[in-house]
Amino acid sequence: MSKRIGIVGTSSPLDPRVVEATEAMASRLYPEATPSFVFAPQCFETAGHFAGPDGVRAQAFVDMANDPEIDAVWFGRGGYGSGRLIETVMPLLGPPAREKDYLGYSDAGAMLAALYGAGFTRVAHGPMPHDALGYGAPESAERGLRWLMEHDPAALEPSVDGVTPTAAFNIMMLSSLIGTPWQPDLAGHVVMLEEVSEYLYRIDRALFHITSNPALRRVKGFRLGRWSITPNPTADFAQSPESVLRHWCERAGVDYLGEADIGHDLGNRVVPFGLYGR
Amino acid sequence: MSKRIGIVGTSSPLDPRVVEATEAMASRLYPEATPSFVFAPQCFETAGHFAGPDGVRAQAFVDMANDPEIDAVWFGRGGYGSGRLIETVMPLLGPPAREKDYLGYSDAGAMLAALYGAGFTRVAHGPMPHDALGYGAPESAERGLRWLMEHDPAALEPSVDGVTPTAAFNIMMLSSLIGTPWQPDLAGHVVMLEEVSEYLYRIDRALFHITSNPALRRVKGFRLGRWSITPNPTADFAQSPESVLRHWCERAGVDYLGEADIGHDLGNRVVPFGLYGR
Repeated sequence: MSKRIGIVGTSSPLDPRVVEATEAMASRLYPEATPSFVFAPQCFETAGHFAGPDGVRAQAFVDMANDPEIDAVWFGRGGYGSGRLIETVMPLLGPPAREKDYLGYSDAGAMLAALYGAGFTRVAHGPMPHDALGYGAPESAERGLRWLMEHDPAALEPSVDGVTPTAAFNIMMLSSLIGTPWQPDLAGHVVMLEEVSEYLYRIDRALFHITSNPALRRVKGFRLGRWSITPNPTADFAQSPESVLRHWCERAGVDYLGEADIGHDLGNRVVPFGLYGR
Repeated sequence: MSKRIGIVGTSSPLDPRVVEATEAMASRLYPEATPSFVFAPQCFETAGHFAGPDGVRAQAFVDMANDPEIDAVWFGRGGYGSGRLIETVMPLLGPPAREKDYLGYSDAGAMLAALYGAGFTRVAHGPMPHDALGYGAPESAERGLRWLMEHDPAALEPSVDGVTPTAAFNIMMLSSLIGTPWQPDLAGHVVMLEEVSEYLYRIDRALFHITSNPALRRVKGFRLGRWSITPNPTADFAQSPESVLRHWCERAGVDYLGEADIGHDLGNRVVPFGLYGR
């Protein structure tokens, strides 16, 4: 039987064109066993910044996660709003929710963190359906689909070795989870960090925050994903993103491990939380 | 003997005109016992975003705090950079550092939090010298000076009653201290929050963060200072700042206590950390 992938909008509204783009991609990549997609109708609702009110988004996620006929939950896009749902949805997830894959990044990181923290073993940071529209080519979204369909190793971030536990986050998202019940234990993990559209001084402040947390000082090390720093030229802060991350790693006594092939772009690759499936 | 007030630049560089503005204000308000000001020379240095390199700013703060001849340390202005110094400076503060007042806000909140967390009893959130230049009139800076000179009750935020412990923070600053060793215990405190130049969705995310921290759920309640939301009209988020704070208070089971007379503006008033002097 072909796979069934549920798409939820826990953050901002999806562009309706994403349905056609996702189905076209699936037919192209998997002409023999084309997966079917179940888009939660709320994906296309709009309530202020969000794809529907909190209660509606939360219910759609819970229903999809708890549906034993759904093989994977794919976060449709980022934006903002996942964090508003965590406290509501986590206690409502039943056993079927643990038996499927979850994939997303950016704002969806709040949900990924909470799921991983609750012991879910099939959670990954990576491209979303909406990326098929956003980056001028479907390449990154296809990589996400290949991960969900067959756990294609070619979709993985190259440093992921299956031996060292990993995690990946948008910097502001990780910062906003610190000290909450949904901050996952990342001791011994390689943690990859990416950011988009942030002033560098804010990134510096968020890295102060991340590397000052005693639990996060127990990571194996940090890697630098891509940082699209649109509002402020690096020159203004007089330091490069790499020097900023190196500074905080040094201050925290944590290893800086080099670059990571993740970001808000066409090259974004998949990073499992922990060791996938274990 | 007239008071000696030390002015430090732990964040961004000060405009040199602040010296004349501060001295003029002091002569005008206190013609009989005019305080003298000691501006740390690094206030006027520039190293990227900062008033001099981290080491220089840290040393200037430590020297001023530990100087028994200095009655009060006044943070010159905000910007960004105080948080980078906390871990260095806190272990270097000696007994004289506890025998003086500290006043500042915005980015200086990182230092205020760390000092209050270390048991300093004379720490307050309020106007800084640079405000004499920034808001078109010296009124707010004068209020800060009157607090440092005579603890003028007229300088206080009106809800401060001397019985209920208080604290005040820039929202992003408080968010970036959560889960660090410098997050102060604010159980039972009325916590007043203000913000400037932030998108409302980020404020919402920061309030998710603040109100999801178990320790911060033990505050007596939150008050809403002024929020200058320049980059994003409230309409875009479809909620007012008050409704956002009310939402998170309700979710956290914490009282929303109404407005607070603080903000990045001429009306900004003084809020002691805890119960002043106790």
